[in-house]
Amino acid sequence: MLSGCGVFDGSEIHEVCAALLALHRAGTQVTACAPSGPQMHVINHLAGEPAAGESRDILTESARLMRGEIIPLADLDPKDFDAIVLPGGFGAAKNLCNFATEGDQCTVHPEVEAFLREANTLGKPIGAMCIAPVILARIFGNDLHPELTIGNDAATASLVENMGANHRNCQEAETLVDQTNLMVSTPAYMLAGNIGDVFAGAEGFVEELLRLCP
Amino acid sequence: MLSGCGVFDGSEIHEVCAALLALHRAGTQVTACAPSGPQMHVINHLAGEPAAGESRDILTESARLMRGEIIPLADLDPKDFDAIVLPGGFGAAKNLCNFATEGDQCTVHPEVEAFLREANTLGKPIGAMCIAPVILARIFGNDLHPELTIGNDAATASLVENMGANHRNCQEAETLVDQTNLMVSTPAYMLAGNIGDVFAGAEGFVEELLRLCP
Repeated sequence: MLSGCGVFDGSEIHEVCAALLALHRAGTQVTACAPSGPQMHVINHLAGEPAAGESRDILTESARLMRGEIIPLADLDPKDFDAIVLPGGFGAAKNLCNFATEGDQCTVHPEVEAFLREANTLGKPIGAMCIAPVILARIFGNDLHPELTIGNDAATASLVENMGANHRNCQEAETLVDQTNLMVSTPAYMLAGNIGDVFAGAEGFVEELLRLCP
Repeated sequence: MLSGCGVFDGSEIHEVCAALLALHRAGTQVTACAPSGPQMHVINHLAGEPAAGESRDILTESARLMRGEIIPLADLDPKDFDAIVLPGGFGAAKNLCNFATEGDQCTVHPEVEAFLREANTLGKPIGAMCIAPVILARIFGNDLHPELTIGNDAATASLVENMGANHRNCQEAETLVDQTNLMVSTPAYMLAGNIGDVFAGAEGFVEELLRLCP
């Protein structure tokens, strides 16, 4: 489930490729999706600041990462999938929910929340990379108190805990498994200093995710 | 050397990540660059057609692929590098040259041509993926007649030959080495059917490229 294309306003590109490669190597068939609708904003990735007056669509930009092969989230049913992957990038915290601006008071995009709740009810494992575990903390924190990691940033970890989840510190390429709630998380670029760590981490992350599939 | 962000109007995202990962694993230090200036056009990757009225900058969009870590091509000197990599994607044939519209009558972006000519003169190996070898065919074809591959598409191969290069058919993950002219090329998504072939191909491609370094 993508959130745009580019670390500062969408899905983190290296993380998406790392997840896609690991899923391919594990022999799975991937369907990419994203919600339609405007991104929170567009960041000029060269200047590192918002591009005034620009507007881009989450689904249309996410399509870049998939060479056009993507389906609107609204058209998918969780029952047709074995597992869900949420890559990181600020888009996860700006477009799929508004954690980037609202912190532990955030709300989740209604289509994203409905899809993930239904997936969890159906016993489908969900994996979240980088900052994306905040989405799971928001949706499931107060009911299920899942174990999640966003790496080891104390401020972010405490926001995750405020939403009812149990945060565990992890290393960059490590994967945390919550066997009870069928959730896995990995810090990726929350901690990784290079693309090698991201790909190494994604491999273990996908392995653990698929291990949770019935 | 990047050309935007997205297969249909910029650098092919999976190919860039594959090259970056292979270069990282080989222990190299990478500097990303791209020319500044407007892309030929913006393609809506969901609809697969031009986005009317939109304009994007080649360097600014390329920055998305590098998490902001990129330098304008005009600020770089080939003498400071050991080798050059040109990933594919239509951006290579739309923004770095105009092969996509002009075929064997194409011209190369002046900054790109100057940089690559100087690199070649200095004995720096150049690697080109997917459709990017057409840039090398245009610049060096008539003088050096390099051996290049864009896979096995007969029409494209004949345009490469018309520009003076010697085209060789190759498999998706194969790398063609021109030892004399210090150029390597690999078909990548000109032929690859999946992301696994692209990453496997990039590994061998980078290995052959680095073998040509003094």
